[in-house]
Amino acid sequence: MKPPNETSSLSNITCPISFGESSVITMAHGGGGKLTRQLIDKIFAPAFGNSQLETNHDSAIFNVDSGKLAYTTDSYVVSPLIFPGGDIGSLAINGTVNDLAMSGAKPLYLTAGFILEEGLPIETLFKVVQSMKTAANESGVSIITGDTKVVDKGKGDGIYINTSGVGVINHNLSIHPKSVKPGDAILVSGNLGRHGMAIMAARENLGFESQITSDCAALSGMVEELLQANIELHCLRDLTRGGLATALVEIVDTANLSITVDDSKIPIGEEVKGACEILGLDPLYVANEGRFVAFVPQSHADQALVIMQNHTHGQNANIIGRVEENASKRVVLKNALGTSRILDLLSGEQLPRIC
Amino acid sequence: MKPPNETSSLSNITCPISFGESSVITMAHGGGGKLTRQLIDKIFAPAFGNSQLETNHDSAIFNVDSGKLAYTTDSYVVSPLIFPGGDIGSLAINGTVNDLAMSGAKPLYLTAGFILEEGLPIETLFKVVQSMKTAANESGVSIITGDTKVVDKGKGDGIYINTSGVGVINHNLSIHPKSVKPGDAILVSGNLGRHGMAIMAARENLGFESQITSDCAALSGMVEELLQANIELHCLRDLTRGGLATALVEIVDTANLSITVDDSKIPIGEEVKGACEILGLDPLYVANEGRFVAFVPQSHADQALVIMQNHTHGQNANIIGRVEENASKRVVLKNALGTSRILDLLSGEQLPRIC
Repeated sequence: MKPPNETSSLSNITCPISFGESSVITMAHGGGGKLTRQLIDKIFAPAFGNSQLETNHDSAIFNVDSGKLAYTTDSYVVSPLIFPGGDIGSLAINGTVNDLAMSGAKPLYLTAGFILEEGLPIETLFKVVQSMKTAANESGVSIITGDTKVVDKGKGDGIYINTSGVGVINHNLSIHPKSVKPGDAILVSGNLGRHGMAIMAARENLGFESQITSDCAALSGMVEELLQANIELHCLRDLTRGGLATALVEIVDTANLSITVDDSKIPIGEEVKGACEILGLDPLYVANEGRFVAFVPQSHADQALVIMQNHTHGQNANIIGRVEENASKRVVLKNALGTSRILDLLSGEQLPRIC
Repeated sequence: MKPPNETSSLSNITCPISFGESSVITMAHGGGGKLTRQLIDKIFAPAFGNSQLETNHDSAIFNVDSGKLAYTTDSYVVSPLIFPGGDIGSLAINGTVNDLAMSGAKPLYLTAGFILEEGLPIETLFKVVQSMKTAANESGVSIITGDTKVVDKGKGDGIYINTSGVGVINHNLSIHPKSVKPGDAILVSGNLGRHGMAIMAARENLGFESQITSDCAALSGMVEELLQANIELHCLRDLTRGGLATALVEIVDTANLSITVDDSKIPIGEEVKGACEILGLDPLYVANEGRFVAFVPQSHADQALVIMQNHTHGQNANIIGRVEENASKRVVLKNALGTSRILDLLSGEQLPRIC
């Protein structure tokens, strides 16, 4: 496992807990005995402490009003564990918060399941958990139950985290690819490709002139603002694995429509463009962790754009295309010269383990 | 990774899907592109198909009436993946169903997060998914959303699965260690130690005379019967990692009481006793995956016992002890000779990766 990247904002936090001689994770930390209890009592409970956190029973319990709940899960296996702009902890919170937000749900409760590799420095786990705490606080979600397993050295890669999440849907919109309509405007919430390229640069020690930081961020706040402004959201999709291109292809496939995108309107920073050129990557397929695409009626597009651009995480938002009334299920990318190309799902894997 | 154990009931199922040249998991299966979509469309969706399964969007959505929901998560890293009496798939469903049942909840919805190791035969994934389907059907739960990640060869161990689960609590009992009362009778739902010893025997190729099969099973049905009979359940706990001893120690610690257990009343099969003696293991600390302990008022104990013993998974149930009115937080085990010993949490790990 690689050492934490010292450029991370986490590098100044130190584990205040003395574990005596046991400064690394052992198989016994996953055995359900004294050492498992020590991890819960000294690392997880202090970080995630909230009135509903359940560390002494098999399930946590929460009350609901009748209505619709959104439910999601994601496992995080990013390598390296800590990268410029984030780490596996913030990613595991923001990624699942974002999956809920993409249904228009207000994220409420998360679970956290850790698969730790024998030999992991407890200090690293501590830092990651602190990062989860910070990210959860920023999104207003509570981690209410969890689980820890330990696998033998060489059967993991430091830390894998699964988070599942539950959120409440407080509106009557059906935000789904099936709700996309011909004529809809397509907006992206910010500049693309930073997460994937930040991971790539950190992993390969690429010395780009200006450091690319991940866009890893929670999107629930921006979605909440769009909902409160009564923007008629037809579909939202966060642009993770496979990037913008994959998201659009999947959406037209479910919606049975097609899309035209104006290449010149897609916001991509110069540093990401440059890095992609050097590495021969297409930024439209590079993963993001704090960006989404929104489908809204043309009449709502300008207002939605202003809301996005005024948000911390949406400064480079733009309207990039529109939904066409034909069932070819094609995503057509037009460039300034008037030529066009069809975007498709990738056959292979562009950048493995970016999330 | 070890080959599937041919004694498993799964050995006769074959993957009906031709993946062409790609018969093993590659990094691209986790990339969000065509191969990820193929896994979803050809393996996950057909197995988990239900009206709420969401394979085209970030979250699944379900409706709730107002009330209390139980929420839990567990990751499963068992080795070997397939063992006598079960496999990682049935374990991942039953384990999470049981965690919900231990809160007295009726399990409703599960999520499934897969971490696959590059090189895993797709056939093995297929078998495990079929087993999840069967187990989910038996418990009446729906898997409504999921996620797949792939890690490099040597960074996993075939398949790790996280399942989270949501269930509804339809009663007014507070089933929790804090609800345990002095005088409560303590029941175990069946003979102990089979899961842990089945894993141990499969892993080490121990040739015991009679094969020990795992007790892996869903406990929600038996709990539902106890609730319907108005048994006043104070606390339930499934006896997984750390076995009966760990469960009792954790419960007295939270309840601030103590427990006396009659050693001769604890149901343990002869084959498990023999295997534990040979290996120098204490069956009270060996994991189960289809056994639980129940704390009920003495006046309800006999009726609860009859309900358990009449259930398929509770034939060897017994009343094993009582809760004492003192705050020493001790679990005292008395044997037939009148001597006693104090049970404590294990300092180390008795049997790693049994769940």
